[in-house]
Amino acid sequence: MTLPKINFRIILYILGFLLMLEGIFMVTGMPFSIIYCKRSCYVLLISGCITSGSGFLVWYLARKNLNKLIGRREAYLIVTGAWIVISLFGALPYIMSGSIPGFTDAFFETISGFTTTGASILQDIEILPKGILFWRAMTHWIGGMGIIVLSVAILPLLGIGGMQLFIAEMPGITPDKLHPRITQTAKRLWLIYVMLTLVQTLLLMTGGMDLFDALCHAFATMATGGFSTKNASLAAFSPFIQYVTIVFMILAGTSFTLHYLMIRGRIRELWRNEEYRYYLYILSIFTVILALLLLLKAGTGLEQSFRDALFQVVSIITTTGFITSDYETWPGYLWIFIFLLMFVGGCAGSTGGGIKVARQILLWKNSGLELKRLMHPQGIIPVKFNGKAVPQNILLLVMAFFLFYIFTFVIGTFIMSLLGLDFRTATGSTLSALGNIGPGFGSVGPVYNYAHLPSFGKWFLSFLMLLGRLELFTVLILLTPGFWKK
Amino acid sequence: MTLPKINFRIILYILGFLLMLEGIFMVTGMPFSIIYCKRSCYVLLISGCITSGSGFLVWYLARKNLNKLIGRREAYLIVTGAWIVISLFGALPYIMSGSIPGFTDAFFETISGFTTTGASILQDIEILPKGILFWRAMTHWIGGMGIIVLSVAILPLLGIGGMQLFIAEMPGITPDKLHPRITQTAKRLWLIYVMLTLVQTLLLMTGGMDLFDALCHAFATMATGGFSTKNASLAAFSPFIQYVTIVFMILAGTSFTLHYLMIRGRIRELWRNEEYRYYLYILSIFTVILALLLLLKAGTGLEQSFRDALFQVVSIITTTGFITSDYETWPGYLWIFIFLLMFVGGCAGSTGGGIKVARQILLWKNSGLELKRLMHPQGIIPVKFNGKAVPQNILLLVMAFFLFYIFTFVIGTFIMSLLGLDFRTATGSTLSALGNIGPGFGSVGPVYNYAHLPSFGKWFLSFLMLLGRLELFTVLILLTPGFWKK
Repeated sequence: MTLPKINFRIILYILGFLLMLEGIFMVTGMPFSIIYCKRSCYVLLISGCITSGSGFLVWYLARKNLNKLIGRREAYLIVTGAWIVISLFGALPYIMSGSIPGFTDAFFETISGFTTTGASILQDIEILPKGILFWRAMTHWIGGMGIIVLSVAILPLLGIGGMQLFIAEMPGITPDKLHPRITQTAKRLWLIYVMLTLVQTLLLMTGGMDLFDALCHAFATMATGGFSTKNASLAAFSPFIQYVTIVFMILAGTSFTLHYLMIRGRIRELWRNEEYRYYLYILSIFTVILALLLLLKAGTGLEQSFRDALFQVVSIITTTGFITSDYETWPGYLWIFIFLLMFVGGCAGSTGGGIKVARQILLWKNSGLELKRLMHPQGIIPVKFNGKAVPQNILLLVMAFFLFYIFTFVIGTFIMSLLGLDFRTATGSTLSALGNIGPGFGSVGPVYNYAHLPSFGKWFLSFLMLLGRLELFTVLILLTPGFWKK
Repeated sequence: MTLPKINFRIILYILGFLLMLEGIFMVTGMPFSIIYCKRSCYVLLISGCITSGSGFLVWYLARKNLNKLIGRREAYLIVTGAWIVISLFGALPYIMSGSIPGFTDAFFETISGFTTTGASILQDIEILPKGILFWRAMTHWIGGMGIIVLSVAILPLLGIGGMQLFIAEMPGITPDKLHPRITQTAKRLWLIYVMLTLVQTLLLMTGGMDLFDALCHAFATMATGGFSTKNASLAAFSPFIQYVTIVFMILAGTSFTLHYLMIRGRIRELWRNEEYRYYLYILSIFTVILALLLLLKAGTGLEQSFRDALFQVVSIITTTGFITSDYETWPGYLWIFIFLLMFVGGCAGSTGGGIKVARQILLWKNSGLELKRLMHPQGIIPVKFNGKAVPQNILLLVMAFFLFYIFTFVIGTFIMSLLGLDFRTATGSTLSALGNIGPGFGSVGPVYNYAHLPSFGKWFLSFLMLLGRLELFTVLILLTPGFWKK
């Protein structure tokens, strides 16, 4: 099978366009710079101009005689390229303001933002200029926007990891043309994303946050990112604010097409959606177990045990990574719960990372049915999802995804161990980066950060964040020789 | 779908017959008892009589008006029942001789023998009477015999875990009737098993072992068991003996139908067999890497680095569990290699446990092909094994097996942690029991034993040994309500 030449020009055209937008987003932090500290104001302006300027140049040069056809391979290159390029330019404000002097650290912090991971190399967050902190939260929010389009419109079209199956159908959208579908879907879902962000901001302000903190935390919540403006993360705020954050983390971990259906008054479809139902089951069951164990073993009060359990469970499953209680100090084996939760992930079509609830459902259903099939070898017993039989090739695709995920986790842990990290830190950092969560275990646990890792480790984790965020296949396929063959 | 009543009588009939045989095997250790220590002689005689007597009674009572039809469900019950019943009676010599006073410990040691695991609760092996040590090695050997029939004849017929695909075809055997197939296959393969055991015994004696040690170690090697007669395991013997053991562990981890084909002069089929090829690749690659790392990091000599690496790699992959070097003392991250190797397992149709090489091949091939399928979404790209396309439902079956394996490992680790064990010990004991390996990590590492575990932990690990040995499904299906429904 021969493939046509890759249309690199359309790739540059789109990446240039994205950089122009990124530059504009950069300068939106200027008002906060002006109010709190003037120096970072110029940094944001200059970074924004460099970014938009570079973007414009590339866009302008690629524009002539452009063939606008975007094939499969161009789509893969655009997606991976976009996250890399905006992370490279996104590091400018950190470097130029001197907030993060090293390039490795600045890039790590930026890609951690855009992949909505929330792993930080900052040892003291609160001394940073407000304008820079705003940009830090903004990287999450932009990343979240990208993920919504990616997971609802682009990946299902490319057939990655069975995603086409998990996304509730958007009414009035037909998958015959890539471009109109993306534009239409994106507009609708972004509107919901913006609205939810605004509502959360207002509620957080009602709880006593100022506009700056409220916006930054709303950005980080809706993107399931996890960057806070406080060293203590959400533990620095009142229980009311924590509960508000919990609700919006749950919403951010839900498929955005479900939000759309709900707004259109089709509330019943919410409960009919199997992934959503299991998502709530998992959240509830783990919260109840953990709350009881915390109550009995750690001796915290009833309300606090419940809140600590709920917050941490929701934060880890949705892969947000905010923290109100250091699970590393929980008694004995309780942290194993957190370890298990790190594998779950949010719903498909949400901003959450990880393996995703829908994939878990398919895999476990098939395993359970295998026992039934052994009893009735003559019968045909298909796996059903949302009431429909799932084709076997989709199951094999999901299985391949799961195996790559586990394999990457194991190899990643090994590589991090080679760098001299202890086993818990190696496990925690790999799993956290791959699942786009943020906090890990050991020396990268909730109250620590990633500053002390060796440079190679930071680059490797950056790669894992990208890999996890783009559902593995999007990046892995670029590493196969077959992709580049003429 | 309604199922006929379970024919319990045929189950009792066969279990009774197996107990009669077990009693006879018990008394075969008497010559060694007589030579070395007379007391254990009577113990073996009495235990043997009790076992055979009980077996005869059950067999005799179940015999009248017997319906000899063995269906699917009867087969499941016979297999699981056999391993439990022979382990219960097999504990008699330990208890009656006072070698292992507690029932929990005695049962653990026995089922560890019959499942060819080799995990021991004995703190000093060498003080035991020779007759008892002979029975201990014999439990391995009997277990290995059972496994050969199970994996080559019974499980493929029941369609468990895709085994029907992995076993090289035995010429002249048709799967239309269970009984003739089992008898014929068993006779041929047992002959090979006995011959290999005798050859190894002779070679070990050439290396300086006495007949008793040579027989016991040959029993434990061919069954991929791992019980030694020495506290230091194979480290107590010469390099020559260690190399002989390596060769026979590799043979024991190979499908016995391949041995049969080889004896019939069809040596070419050996190399054509994909599982065998990958099995040798994995052994070689891991040995070379580990040998180099040991040479560079631990500073042991060239020959010893190679021998230590080869021995440990072969011992873990084949799930034998003999030890010549404590991998827990290897520098830094090297033990992670051992951890990974514990998941591999031997070849299908061998006496080895674990996930099995063939299943690994199918899973990884499918994952790799998924990337190719994404590039060519219109093409049909099947997984091939030994040159033939593998049906999708077999792949789903293998996937289900893999997931149950991982899930049991994770849940098992959690349960062992709940008992107060540290993480390494919890991980190591679970993985080692499930894969029928023997040594684990932490306080159940190569130079330690399982004596200090709480009683519940020993029973739970016994269950895991059984589960792993019978390829999960055989046991799990008994736990589903559908199995018992009329």
